[in-house]
Amino acid sequence: MVDSQKLIYAQRKAAFRNLLKGKKLDAYFLGDLSNLYYFTGFWNEGYFSLVGRKEAWLFLPSLLFNQARRETIGFECVKGKVFPSLRKVLTRNRLGKVGFNPAQVSFEMGTELKKLGLAPVPGLVEELRAVKDREEIKLMREAGRLTMEGLEFIKKRLKPGISERTLAADLAHYYFLKAHGLAFNLIVAAGPNSAYPHHITSDYKIRKGDPVIFDVGAVWRGYRSDLTRTLPLGKMTPSFWRVFNIVAGAQKAAIQRLNPGVLAVEVDNAARSFIRNRGFGSAFVHNTGHGVGIDIHEAPRIGPGSKEKLKAGMVVTVEPGIYLPGKFGVRIEDTLLVTPEGPEVLTK
Amino acid sequence: MVDSQKLIYAQRKAAFRNLLKGKKLDAYFLGDLSNLYYFTGFWNEGYFSLVGRKEAWLFLPSLLFNQARRETIGFECVKGKVFPSLRKVLTRNRLGKVGFNPAQVSFEMGTELKKLGLAPVPGLVEELRAVKDREEIKLMREAGRLTMEGLEFIKKRLKPGISERTLAADLAHYYFLKAHGLAFNLIVAAGPNSAYPHHITSDYKIRKGDPVIFDVGAVWRGYRSDLTRTLPLGKMTPSFWRVFNIVAGAQKAAIQRLNPGVLAVEVDNAARSFIRNRGFGSAFVHNTGHGVGIDIHEAPRIGPGSKEKLKAGMVVTVEPGIYLPGKFGVRIEDTLLVTPEGPEVLTK
Repeated sequence: MVDSQKLIYAQRKAAFRNLLKGKKLDAYFLGDLSNLYYFTGFWNEGYFSLVGRKEAWLFLPSLLFNQARRETIGFECVKGKVFPSLRKVLTRNRLGKVGFNPAQVSFEMGTELKKLGLAPVPGLVEELRAVKDREEIKLMREAGRLTMEGLEFIKKRLKPGISERTLAADLAHYYFLKAHGLAFNLIVAAGPNSAYPHHITSDYKIRKGDPVIFDVGAVWRGYRSDLTRTLPLGKMTPSFWRVFNIVAGAQKAAIQRLNPGVLAVEVDNAARSFIRNRGFGSAFVHNTGHGVGIDIHEAPRIGPGSKEKLKAGMVVTVEPGIYLPGKFGVRIEDTLLVTPEGPEVLTK
Repeated sequence: MVDSQKLIYAQRKAAFRNLLKGKKLDAYFLGDLSNLYYFTGFWNEGYFSLVGRKEAWLFLPSLLFNQARRETIGFECVKGKVFPSLRKVLTRNRLGKVGFNPAQVSFEMGTELKKLGLAPVPGLVEELRAVKDREEIKLMREAGRLTMEGLEFIKKRLKPGISERTLAADLAHYYFLKAHGLAFNLIVAAGPNSAYPHHITSDYKIRKGDPVIFDVGAVWRGYRSDLTRTLPLGKMTPSFWRVFNIVAGAQKAAIQRLNPGVLAVEVDNAARSFIRNRGFGSAFVHNTGHGVGIDIHEAPRIGPGSKEKLKAGMVVTVEPGIYLPGKFGVRIEDTLLVTPEGPEVLTK
């Protein structure tokens, strides 16, 4: 691990310890792999961590013990089963007030943690992770750039007669070769399939006049990006262009509101009211966007009823859509960084 | 949905209702997508189900409501937020004794379910899903066949100078084109990287004399398969062949024990003692195998301390390995069906 990386992990722990202090917690238990990765850079299923105000521990099975000792820094590595090890660490270090995230551990695990005296304290790491640090922004710019590169690559392959599946396979190949794989199970939805936001890629062969929705994303060193384009193939109907322009307008209206201090619900409302005012309100059936980073969906949520406020350093998607079952659908999505100087498009 | 499929879902619910009866439960809450898919065939994040002794319900957000009504059978579809809807259904139908799986819902959700009077009852659906029905076996044979086809395809591309990443991208392309994508994040680990069971695919260029571990799997209509081969490139050292033959022998020994009525721990022990008796006990750092189906890891676990007993219809992996950090590693894995006539290799 190079020195600059050591510093990053030390800074993340320091920022988290400030949150612990604010909540008057002695320590916090991490049970979610994405949270663990954020603090350790170590991506392996089956380990856990406790971050205290001064020290921090990893609880590891034998399988991971040596690798973790070699590849992580700033943690005491403890080999063995998690609950007995955790109990010992809590007692020896007199850690009384300890939290865990009730949304990110199973009911079974949370019940065991409560027996050890831990208390559910939601949202702490999410809050931290929602605002990206300099290193994360660098990685997300690269993930965004690679994601768009894949779209440019596939555009050239789009022609009548090619199947959704062939295009999806070519995109998977691209992102595995040029990046570190797929950010999520990519979607290629053509013609009538474009009307279903969660369409599963099929053997449908694309025809002239079909809209083709590509919802794709690359991973770069653990960070994800999310991009959707609705590409026309050949001459399209006026009703397609009408809907397309409304979705494009809604995206633009939402992006214009994407500034520090703005409520996420206002961004959602900018897109939603734009679409509603043009008569398609009931055809916009999902949220306007979501945070993205180590996870493809993370804080903040940009949707109706969202309570979160945008901050500089947040990375979010803006992805309005209109879906007309039996006919077609349009979705346009970018991943953007919130900055004091206005939003920066990362998927470019 | 064709009639034969209707029958499958009806049969699965009927079998599950027998388990509910045995546990004296009126109903069971499903919070895990794989479990939901098993009973509905509907693969979409964000919905839940309650299966009663006579009726069954799906709790859906607006986004999924129409699609679920069209694509599922044998469920009453309820639109809206899950907890208020669930409360109404419980009251109206006088469902008093209702369970949920504490390992498959978050602590947050489990806490809400307990407030509604539900109780944690572990393992019920896992038990059912561990034994595959005729339809599942058909799909898993196809997933196994396609997985091996991908391996045969990549064997031809394996030559000195090609990178792990290029091979991984070609495999991803194959499984997206010929099957329904990747069963898990595939592993290509060559030369010294083969010594790490959880190696992340890199830009390492393969040399003559390198062992190359391929750990791959295709998805076919929601069902997964799991296959590992350690392929030699060119002339290998005698120490490689010694280790290779021990792992192959351990796999054979374990597969010979793979029969209905045998304890999973005996299968693990067959592989483990074979390796230990030849001096490599500490280099076999993981379980011998695991169940596979809708999830890549499901019941039963074939490892030290496992309490489960093998049954006809179970589909499991057998995957011993020896890892010598700084040198190389060997793992050999197949996915097999347990039958009264002995194990059937599905990855062939």
